[in-house]
Amino acid sequence: MATADITIIGLRTGPDSHASEYIAEIQRRLAAQDKVAYQLHGMGTSLEGSADDIFALAAELHKVPFELGVPRVYTVMKLDDPADRPAQTLADKVDSVKNRL
Amino acid sequence: MATADITIIGLRTGPDSHASEYIAEIQRRLAAQDKVAYQLHGMGTSLEGSADDIFALAAELHKVPFELGVPRVYTVMKLDDPADRPAQTLADKVDSVKNRL
Amino acid sequence: MATADITIIGLRTGPDSHASEYIAEIQRRLAAQDKVAYQLHGMGTSLEGSADDIFALAAELHKVPFELGVPRVYTVMKLDDPADRPAQTLADKVDSVKNRL
Amino acid sequence: MATADITIIGLRTGPDSHASEYIAEIQRRLAAQDKVAYQLHGMGTSLEGSADDIFALAAELHKVPFELGVPRVYTVMKLDDPADRPAQTLADKVDSVKNRL
Repeated sequence: MATADITIIGLRTGPDSHASEYIAEIQRRLAAQDKVAYQLHGMGTSLEGSADDIFALAAELHKVPFELGVPRVYTVMKLDDPADRPAQTLADKVDSVKNRL
Repeated sequence: MATADITIIGLRTGPDSHASEYIAEIQRRLAAQDKVAYQLHGMGTSLEGSADDIFALAAELHKVPFELGVPRVYTVMKLDDPADRPAQTLADKVDSVKNRL
Repeated sequence: MATADITIIGLRTGPDSHASEYIAEIQRRLAAQDKVAYQLHGMGTSLEGSADDIFALAAELHKVPFELGVPRVYTVMKLDDPADRPAQTLADKVDSVKNRL
Repeated sequence: MATADITIIGLRTGPDSHASEYIAEIQRRLAAQDKVAYQLHGMGTSLEGSADDIFALAAELHKVPFELGVPRVYTVMKLDDPADRPAQTLADKVDSVKNRL
């Protein structure tokens, strides 16, 4: 299992635009599938699933702002794939740090 | 105020290494300062403060794994600076999405 | 057409490891396909193609270090998709800046 | 010495905006300093220097779009710091891959 973080940014949207509009729609798309677990945070959305499923999902989510009229979309993604410790979840990663504090 | 996300990765650390060791030390450094608010999550640490303070802090945090013997450090950072809506916090960004769901 | 940048990092590889080994293999995989144009640079590989093709290719490239024995792989990607100016290439983006200098 | 890659993105700029305007100004600021070497490419600007100098420079460059009237700025940065092989340049990294092809 891999964990990832994705940020999808609308560009050239004008001074009155709100990113929360397309981010809310992205959250609805995430809720409508069950292959990849997800959690919204202040700088993006964390993902948990197979690397293949995460990349395929990212390709779908990247298109969402276009459907809402955004002219240009910029997506930033990072994906951590510890094949040697495949059971590790997002929560495990946080816990393993907190256990050392 | 800006919000940011930072991931600091140790490279060439060997098969038995645990990133949680230096991430825990990074959390202690964050706790020892009060210019930038922070929150650990599964794919990095979210930050909240002025852009200048965040970049200066990032430069300090980036050095922490070296102190613990990591031979090579790779840092990934994204910083969102809405000067037109400067009061926006990490929590505000999440709330503005949730209010649309 | 979209343009993108991908960095694929091997983790827990040991002090004598060389990233150039798996990056060279990634370049060979890129050479063996013709959907996405690519160019190696000092901090990653630039890509040019449809967003769908780029995400699908990223999923394949991400697996390459595992085939060479790397225990953990971390991929960082950014993808710029100007649907309003779809003809823009990587070279166009550089030229449009240089024309202003 | 570290190598890095920085992308500075203007948000809420409107449909007729051109990123090349502020990217050109960023290139002029880079040309006006001599601590950090730089090279523009299609997805960002590669940097080469000490990690401290790169973070300090990033903080300065991040402000440039605001001076040109951009309302919101989003900066993405990655920094590779191989303290165990400190002589490695951007060009060395590309060469070490090409030598294996």
